[in-house]
Amino acid sequence: MKRFITAILLIFGLFTCYAQKHPNLVFTQEGAAQIKNNLGKYPLLDLSIAEAKAKVAANIAQGIEVPVPKDPGGGYTHEKHKLNYDVMLNAAMLWQITGEKFYAEFVREMLLAYAKLYPTLGIHPEGVNSGVPGKLFWQSLNDAVWLVHAAQAYDCVYDYLNSDERKNIENNLLRLSVKFSMEDRAETFNRIHNHGLWAICGVAMTGYVLNDKDMVEKAIYGSNKDKKTGFLSNIDALFSPDGYYCEGSYYLRYAIMPTILLAKTIQNNQPDLHIYAYKDSTLAKSIPALLQQTDPIGQFLPFNDALKDKAWTSGEIVYAVNIAYNDIAADPLLLYAAQQQGRVMLSADGVVVAKAIGEGKAPANFKWKSMELRDGSKGDQGGVAMLRYGQTPDAMAATMKYGTFGMEHGHLDKLTIGFYDQGREILSDYGSARFINIEQKRGGRYLPENKTFVNQTIAHNTVTVDQKSNYGGNTKKADECNAVRYYFNASDERLQIVSAKDTTAYPGVKMQRTIALLQPDDSYFTRPFLLDLFNLQSEKPHQYDLAYYYQGDFIHTGIKYDYEREMQAAGGSQGYQHLWLRAQGTAANDNESFTWINAARFYTITTICKPEKTQLLMVQSGANDPEFNLRNENGIIFREQNSNSRLFASVIEPHGSFSPITEASLGSYANIVRLKEVVNNAAVTAVTIEARNGKRWLFAISNNNTDPNANHSIELNGKTVSWAGTHVFIMIND
Amino acid sequence: MKRFITAILLIFGLFTCYAQKHPNLVFTQEGAAQIKNNLGKYPLLDLSIAEAKAKVAANIAQGIEVPVPKDPGGGYTHEKHKLNYDVMLNAAMLWQITGEKFYAEFVREMLLAYAKLYPTLGIHPEGVNSGVPGKLFWQSLNDAVWLVHAAQAYDCVYDYLNSDERKNIENNLLRLSVKFSMEDRAETFNRIHNHGLWAICGVAMTGYVLNDKDMVEKAIYGSNKDKKTGFLSNIDALFSPDGYYCEGSYYLRYAIMPTILLAKTIQNNQPDLHIYAYKDSTLAKSIPALLQQTDPIGQFLPFNDALKDKAWTSGEIVYAVNIAYNDIAADPLLLYAAQQQGRVMLSADGVVVAKAIGEGKAPANFKWKSMELRDGSKGDQGGVAMLRYGQTPDAMAATMKYGTFGMEHGHLDKLTIGFYDQGREILSDYGSARFINIEQKRGGRYLPENKTFVNQTIAHNTVTVDQKSNYGGNTKKADECNAVRYYFNASDERLQIVSAKDTTAYPGVKMQRTIALLQPDDSYFTRPFLLDLFNLQSEKPHQYDLAYYYQGDFIHTGIKYDYEREMQAAGGSQGYQHLWLRAQGTAANDNESFTWINAARFYTITTICKPEKTQLLMVQSGANDPEFNLRNENGIIFREQNSNSRLFASVIEPHGSFSPITEASLGSYANIVRLKEVVNNAAVTAVTIEARNGKRWLFAISNNNTDPNANHSIELNGKTVSWAGTHVFIMIND
Repeated sequence: MKRFITAILLIFGLFTCYAQKHPNLVFTQEGAAQIKNNLGKYPLLDLSIAEAKAKVAANIAQGIEVPVPKDPGGGYTHEKHKLNYDVMLNAAMLWQITGEKFYAEFVREMLLAYAKLYPTLGIHPEGVNSGVPGKLFWQSLNDAVWLVHAAQAYDCVYDYLNSDERKNIENNLLRLSVKFSMEDRAETFNRIHNHGLWAICGVAMTGYVLNDKDMVEKAIYGSNKDKKTGFLSNIDALFSPDGYYCEGSYYLRYAIMPTILLAKTIQNNQPDLHIYAYKDSTLAKSIPALLQQTDPIGQFLPFNDALKDKAWTSGEIVYAVNIAYNDIAADPLLLYAAQQQGRVMLSADGVVVAKAIGEGKAPANFKWKSMELRDGSKGDQGGVAMLRYGQTPDAMAATMKYGTFGMEHGHLDKLTIGFYDQGREILSDYGSARFINIEQKRGGRYLPENKTFVNQTIAHNTVTVDQKSNYGGNTKKADECNAVRYYFNASDERLQIVSAKDTTAYPGVKMQRTIALLQPDDSYFTRPFLLDLFNLQSEKPHQYDLAYYYQGDFIHTGIKYDYEREMQAAGGSQGYQHLWLRAQGTAANDNESFTWINAARFYTITTICKPEKTQLLMVQSGANDPEFNLRNENGIIFREQNSNSRLFASVIEPHGSFSPITEASLGSYANIVRLKEVVNNAAVTAVTIEARNGKRWLFAISNNNTDPNANHSIELNGKTVSWAGTHVFIMIND
Repeated sequence: MKRFITAILLIFGLFTCYAQKHPNLVFTQEGAAQIKNNLGKYPLLDLSIAEAKAKVAANIAQGIEVPVPKDPGGGYTHEKHKLNYDVMLNAAMLWQITGEKFYAEFVREMLLAYAKLYPTLGIHPEGVNSGVPGKLFWQSLNDAVWLVHAAQAYDCVYDYLNSDERKNIENNLLRLSVKFSMEDRAETFNRIHNHGLWAICGVAMTGYVLNDKDMVEKAIYGSNKDKKTGFLSNIDALFSPDGYYCEGSYYLRYAIMPTILLAKTIQNNQPDLHIYAYKDSTLAKSIPALLQQTDPIGQFLPFNDALKDKAWTSGEIVYAVNIAYNDIAADPLLLYAAQQQGRVMLSADGVVVAKAIGEGKAPANFKWKSMELRDGSKGDQGGVAMLRYGQTPDAMAATMKYGTFGMEHGHLDKLTIGFYDQGREILSDYGSARFINIEQKRGGRYLPENKTFVNQTIAHNTVTVDQKSNYGGNTKKADECNAVRYYFNASDERLQIVSAKDTTAYPGVKMQRTIALLQPDDSYFTRPFLLDLFNLQSEKPHQYDLAYYYQGDFIHTGIKYDYEREMQAAGGSQGYQHLWLRAQGTAANDNESFTWINAARFYTITTICKPEKTQLLMVQSGANDPEFNLRNENGIIFREQNSNSRLFASVIEPHGSFSPITEASLGSYANIVRLKEVVNNAAVTAVTIEARNGKRWLFAISNNNTDPNANHSIELNGKTVSWAGTHVFIMIND
C-alpha cells in the first residue's frame, strides 16, 4: 500500500509541504548536532573539519574577491569563482558546526558580493567557445555547479541573515541564477544528460531553501512537470537497471555528485518519495557499481571519454560513498574507498563513515568482482563486462564494452577490450584528448583530436572495417544503435568468459567477440592468459584492421617488417591520419607473435595468421597533431584485405619476470606457441591452444545457444568432443 | 711509525702469514657466532636469514643442475649459473649459521658438480658476441662474479669437506678458474676497470682460502706484483680523493661490490694493510658519496651509461652499506639506506646494522646534501656537482657533469646538466640503450644505438657544435681530456651555484656553463628556479645547438613553428640520425618560452633569443631505429648558426599546480617573463631576470676570479653595481 502511494506521489507530484527548517538540504541541523557530539572521536572526521578550517582560513585571510568573469577554463577568474563556491560552502558548514560568527559573516559578505555582481552580468566573454555559455563561467555547466554550492551555503546561514539580506540574496542572486538555468538555458535544463543533472540539482536545492514548490517540481518532473524531463526522467533514461550510467564510468563519476546530492536533499525533505528505491533502486546500485568500474588501482575504466588518473579519491565520490553507506547500505567496500579518500563529508553521513572506519570496520583490501553491467534504460542495450583475477598489487582485469554509444562523450568502439595486469594498463584505451582546465590548451576544453582520433574506431582495441569508423563515423546513427549481450560466465575464477555481438556498426558485417581469462591447470601458467576470438562474417569482402594498443617497450616480433626511415600517417581520415606508420610487414607463418615488456613482466600476443596475407602495422599516435595534443602511444594492427569472413584468434599472455634491481630476466619467451582454428561456423567456434611443452587445450563456445544444459559437439582430429553448456575449456590428449 | 710500516708492507708486499681458519673471507667464524647470538632479536636479521633459507629450500627441492653453458645473457643456462652461485653461497652461510648438514651437503655436491664440468669446458659458444668470452658465461665478467661467490662458499664448507674433496675442488675448479682469470684473461685481470676489480676479487679470495700467497699478491699488486695493475692500482686510478668513481655512479654501484668485498676480506686477513684508509681513505668516502649520487628517490644519477630504475636497493649496495657502517663509520644515513633495502648481509656487519635499525637509530628521511665531487685520480680532472633543495617527496636537484670521459661507458657530454623536481626527472638524461639480460634484445647487451645515439653529445642537455659530438666523436681522445672546475658554492640553500669550463671538446671553442638554483625573496616564487648560463666563445663562426630533453607533456611555446606532417631525421650522423624532427620555428622576440607539464606542476624554459636568428627544433628520439631499441623521449634544441660567441641564458622555472583529481589548474603561465644580458666578457657575465609582477633581479658571476674577497662591478642602466666575491644575486630597483 505504501509503495502504491509512493507511486501516486511520484506520478502526480502531489507534494506534501516541505519541512521549513534550515539547514535542511544535504547538511542538516541533525547532522550539525551529530558532528558536534562526535568531535575528537574519529580521526577522519576531525581531519576533514581541520582541512575545511584551514582552507577557509587561508581564504578569509586573503579577503573576499568576486571578480568580473573574464577568463576561460583554467584562467584566473574561472578558478577564483570555483574556489569561492567551495570555500563559501565550507565556511557555511563550519558556522553550523562551530557557531563561530566570522564564518557566517564571511559567507554573508560573499553572497552579498555575488548579489551585487550577478545582476550586472551578461554572457561570459569566453562563452563563444562553448555551445552553452554561462555568466560566471565560460560554460553554463559551471554556473550550475556554482548554484549547487551557493544554495547549500545560503541554507546554512539562512537563520544568520536578516530579512533584507535574504531578500537581496534571493532576488538578486539565487532566483536570477535559477532563472538563467531554467529559462535562458532551458535546453540544458531539460536535457537528459549530466549537464542537465547539475542544473536540476541547483534549481531543486534552491527551491527547497526558498520553499518554492513550483521550482522543486519543475526540477524533479521537468519544466512542464510532465516527467518527460527533470530529475526522475534523467534517472529513467541515463541509468540502467544495474546502475550502469550510459555515458560511462568517468562521467558517472561526475554525474553522481548532483544525483546523489539531490537524492539526499529529497530524502531529507520528502522522504516519502523513496528516491533511493526509485526505478528498481538504480541509484542504490549505481554507487557500488561505480566503485567496481575501476582499474586495479581505483582509476575509472576508460569507457568513452575519460581522463586517466581519475580515481575514486575524486571529490565527487566522497559524497556518493558517504551517503550510500549511511542512507542505502553499510557495505564495507564503501569504507575501503572512504579510507582511500582520506576524508569524509561534513554531514551525518560523514560522521557514520568516520565512526565505522575509526572502529576498524574498513576492510584491508578492496575486492573487485567479475561482473557484467547491462546498459540501456531497460537493460536491454548491451552492456559492459569486467573479468577479474588476483589481488592488488598484482591484479589482472579484462574488460569489454558492447553497449550504447554514450551520447556526445561516446566512442565509436563497439566490442573494444581492455587488459590490465600487475595493477597496470597492458592493452590500453586512449581515454580522451584534453588537458582539463589548462588555459593554453584551448581553455582546457576537449581538443580537436578527441573527435578526430580518440573517438574513432581505429583508436581502440577492436576491428575497423574498410578504414572507416563504426557507423561511418555518424554519431547520431551510433546513438540509435547498440551491441548485444550474448554470454557472460565468471563463476570459475580460472575460466571467465564474456561474449557479445554487433550487427549495427558495419552494415553487412556480423561481429562477435569472445574474450576469456583462462588458467590451464599446468605449472607453466602461474596466472591466466587472455584468449581473444574476434569473429567477422560478411558476404562481401572487406579490409579488417584489428588494433591492439600496448603499454610498455617492444621486445620482439617474428614478423619481418620494413622499418620506416621517414614517417607518414597511416591514412587520411577516420583517425588513421593521426597514426604514424612506423613499420609494416607480412606474416610468413600460420601463427605470429609480438612481445613487449611492462615493468616486471613480459607480454606476448600470439595470433593465427594467414601466411603472405596477414599484415602487421606498427603505429604510434601523434601524426597530424600540430599542437602536440596527443600522447605518443604505441599500437599494432593486424590487417587483412579482401576478406569475407575471418576469425581473429589470439592469446595475450603474461609471462616471465624482469627486475631492474637484480637484473634477472626469466621467461622472456611466451609459453603459448600456437593457436589453431578447429571450427568456426554459426553454431560453434573452437580453437586449440598449444604450449611450448607440447600440451594442448581446446576452447569452444556455442555461438547461438546459452542454455546451460544444451549439448554440443565438434570433430577434433577425427574424434568427437562433446560438452554441455555454452563453453568448454579442456586439455586434449592426442 | 705504524703508518710507515704499513707503507712499507704495501709497497713491498711483505706479507705476514694469513690466519688459517675457515671461514675467514667476508663471512667469518666470529660473524657466525654473532648471528647465532642475535637470532630472534632484530627483525631485519631474522628476515634476511628467512629469505636466504627460503631461496635455498626452493632450489634444494629442485635438485642440483649444473648445465653445460649454452645461452647468452638472459638465456636459460646463463640465468641458471647465476642462480647457482647465489644459492650456493647462501646455503654455505646457512650451514655456518644453523649447523644443519643438508646445507653443507648441498654446497659440497654443487661444488663437486662444477669440478666435474669445469675441466671439460672450452670457450662459451656465445662468447663471440663478447670481446672477452667466459667459460660458464658468454662474457668472462660473469665467470669472475661466479668465482667471487664460489670462493666464499668453499670457504664456508672447507672444514666440512674431506681432503680428497678439497683437492678435487681446488684443482679441478678453483685453481682452473683462477688460471682462466689470471692467464687466459690476463688483459682483463690487469685492466684498470670494473671488470678488472671483479677478476681481482675472485682471485684474491681464492688465494686467501687456499693460503696461496702468490695468488693474493698478484691480485693486490698486479700480475707482476709491481703495483702497476692489481687492486691497489685500481683504487689509485679509478677513485678520486673525494670517493668519486670515474665511470660514474651507476658503474660504481656495480664496482663497489667486488671492491668492498675484497677490502673486507683484506681487513679480515691482513688488517695491518689498513685498506680502508688507503689513498686518503677514498674507499671510506666512496660509499656515503655513492648514496648521495642519486636522484630524489634513490636512483643513481645517470652520469654516463646508466640503467634507470637502479636504486640503492640494488643488492651490491647492501654489502657496501653494511660493511661501511660496521667497519668505517656508523653514519645514520647508511641505516636509512639499509632500511630501504629491507635486508642485511649475513655477516657481523649485517648484525650490527640490523641491531642499530632495531634500536630505532635509522633516521626517518634521507638527507641529500649539495656537494661537488672532484674527478680524476688526483682530483684535478673536473668533477660532478649536485645542488639540492627541499625534501622528499617534493625534492629538487640540479646536476652538472664536467669531469673525465669515463672509459668505455663514458658519454660525450661535457657540461651536461640534469634537473629534478617533485622527486621526478624534469630535464632528463637518456641513461643507456640496453634491455639488460633480455635475450631477444641482442642477448641483453648494450644495443648499437647506445653508441650511435645515447653516447653522442646531441643526446644530452648541453651544446653540440657544428652537429659534431665532443672530440669529433673520438672516444680515445675524449679519455685523454677533461673539463675543469671553476666555482662551486652551496652555502646558502636559496642561492646555489656551480660553474665549470671546457676548452677540449671543441678546438677553438671555449665553453663555460654556470647553473644556479635561485629563490628570490618574493612570494611569487614558492621554490627556486634554475638559471642556466651557457657561454660559448670562438674566433671562428659555428653552429651551436643547445638541447634540453624534457619529461612531461608539451603545453605551449611562443615560437611559431612549422609542424612536420611527414617526419625525417634531424641529421645524418653523430646522433642526429636518431632524432625525429617534429617541428621547427624561428624566434620572433628577444625572449621566448617553452612550457610543459609534469605531474602536479608546470615547467617553463624562458631563454634569450636573437629575433629571426635563433631557431627552435622540436625533436624526439627514435629515428633510424629499426629494432625499436630507443625510448621516444622529447627534446628541444635552440640552434644558432654562424655564431662566434654566444651566451645562451635561460631560466627553467617550476610554476603553478595541477591536480587530476580536483582538476584544479593554477599558475600555468611562468612568473619569469624576460631575461636580459647585461654584460658578458672575460671578466664577468651578468643577466637580469624580470618577473611578471615587474620585479627584477641581477645575477652576475666573475669569470676569472674565485677569491671571495675580490671586488667586482658592472654598469647597469647607467649605475654601477658592485659586489665582493665571485657571484651576486640581488633584487634591483630602477
